[in-house]
Amino acid sequence: MSPKPPVVIDLKFSRAAMQAALAGAFPDREVIDLGDPENAGRDLSAAAYAVLWKPEPSLFTRASGLKVLFSGGAGVDHVLTLPGLPDLPIVRFVDRSLTDRMSEWVVLNCLYHLRHMGQYLRQQREKVWSEIDLQPEARDVTVGVMGLGVLGEDAARKLKVMGFDVIGWSRRRREIDGIDTYDEAHIDEFLARTDILVGLLPLTPETRGLYDSSLFSRLRQGGALGKPVFLNAGRGGSQVEVDVIAALQKGVLGGASLDVFEKEPLAMDSPLWAMENVVLTPHAAAASDVRALFAHVETQIARFEAGEALEHVVDRSAGY
Amino acid sequence: MSPKPPVVIDLKFSRAAMQAALAGAFPDREVIDLGDPENAGRDLSAAAYAVLWKPEPSLFTRASGLKVLFSGGAGVDHVLTLPGLPDLPIVRFVDRSLTDRMSEWVVLNCLYHLRHMGQYLRQQREKVWSEIDLQPEARDVTVGVMGLGVLGEDAARKLKVMGFDVIGWSRRRREIDGIDTYDEAHIDEFLARTDILVGLLPLTPETRGLYDSSLFSRLRQGGALGKPVFLNAGRGGSQVEVDVIAALQKGVLGGASLDVFEKEPLAMDSPLWAMENVVLTPHAAAASDVRALFAHVETQIARFEAGEALEHVVDRSAGY
Repeated sequence: MSPKPPVVIDLKFSRAAMQAALAGAFPDREVIDLGDPENAGRDLSAAAYAVLWKPEPSLFTRASGLKVLFSGGAGVDHVLTLPGLPDLPIVRFVDRSLTDRMSEWVVLNCLYHLRHMGQYLRQQREKVWSEIDLQPEARDVTVGVMGLGVLGEDAARKLKVMGFDVIGWSRRRREIDGIDTYDEAHIDEFLARTDILVGLLPLTPETRGLYDSSLFSRLRQGGALGKPVFLNAGRGGSQVEVDVIAALQKGVLGGASLDVFEKEPLAMDSPLWAMENVVLTPHAAAASDVRALFAHVETQIARFEAGEALEHVVDRSAGY
Repeated sequence: MSPKPPVVIDLKFSRAAMQAALAGAFPDREVIDLGDPENAGRDLSAAAYAVLWKPEPSLFTRASGLKVLFSGGAGVDHVLTLPGLPDLPIVRFVDRSLTDRMSEWVVLNCLYHLRHMGQYLRQQREKVWSEIDLQPEARDVTVGVMGLGVLGEDAARKLKVMGFDVIGWSRRRREIDGIDTYDEAHIDEFLARTDILVGLLPLTPETRGLYDSSLFSRLRQGGALGKPVFLNAGRGGSQVEVDVIAALQKGVLGGASLDVFEKEPLAMDSPLWAMENVVLTPHAAAASDVRALFAHVETQIARFEAGEALEHVVDRSAGY
């Protein structure tokens, strides 16, 4: 029996997490980890599979026998924009763990703004004991989720359990039980109802720069929180950061929670660091668990080698 | 037809909220609001119902014809400890709104500690971009809810939806679907499994001073968060604050979120204000919505006058 073809790994993740996860992964085949300097000049022509997060574009000329590409994250924009990308199926990373972590971040940040947590923490630093009079409850606040893939749907469902009024938007309309949904043509109606906007969109030519002054100005003003709040845990390229800052300064937005930025790490001179009612996390909302990633890739390779259809394959024409 | 007996109100709430809620409340009977100085010397002998939050004890001699007492909050310790309390049914305030608000606070604070929000906010103030390596997900963390009344059960259910491993404790064991529960005799087993302790207990002689050094030392050390975290949104009298502070200083506890205190407002010289990983809110986790309170009282009075049994009556022997 000929040995199973190798898998090549090019993941720009923390080395410690990578090495821990590689121990025991892919027991039935060779693993070529390009993060290991010893593999710098290795012949990759026998590799059939590649697991990628911001890979070197030279990979595609070196690994000429690839059959399937696996994204190391839920997003695939970092793969689709690579020069020399071969015409192969690309499998996105879908995982219960990644989904749950993203919903944790979304629910935490929606509740943070609902319950005036920024203001209470400021009062605590100043030793002020004062109950904030205007305290709507979740059902008084409409959360609009943009992007209704696996992540958006799970977040929407959990926000609903927490009591929020939840609506959803996606380019092509999706039906989700108990949630009013809108499509591309009805974005204005969606925005006009939204008090907290949750961005979970992939980065595509259509979504680049989507969150701009024009969009923020169409969100509901005078809802239960007074002013709308913007959350983004999708892709930084979808937001126009100068517009986010201007909207916060002018009071078009009352707050924001951002996990992603146009350029990461966020520049030291960005005004966002010090703005009121703004929460920043360093692209940490839903870190890929590397063990879970490898388990997912193993499952899909097993399907592929058994002649079954791959799951979670990217639609290149849609860009996600 | 003789007029319906008056209801007397002695609620130490914000006057603005009270006055707004009184407009339109109890349309079929007279309301005597003791917060209004004009009612200082009023004859209260015809009043059959009293709605109370930290009332003047003289009320019970002045209003000698009372038939039912209504607590203005979920807790009833402020009523049960009153001198001269007559032997009348006491109805606690149970309300969807109050329950939902409490669960918002509990879920927000559990996620806050799970997702290292205190550390991320500190990093943000210092303009540090750094992902925290140890990021367990909710399912790796066991939340132990003490107190499984209406509030505890709702919080437990919502924590479970967010992915946490949830267990519960009450003096007398309660069965809740999908949640391991413990009773008085098994508190050590409960504490030994608990990474985040959520206190939602009523204040009774048994629960006074319950959260002390001994209890904190029995919580799980070395769980997914490293050290246990203590949340209290029940009653301040259940916690020994010097022990909470000592446990945080010694690293027996890794963090805390407190909405209630032995003495409120919290003293300006309490070390809690400035402690790492401690969140303080000014007894604001689940403010009673006064309109909802009056609607609840109206419903119970209607039942009572129709000869039906009152709901949510306090068990005086248990103290809650």
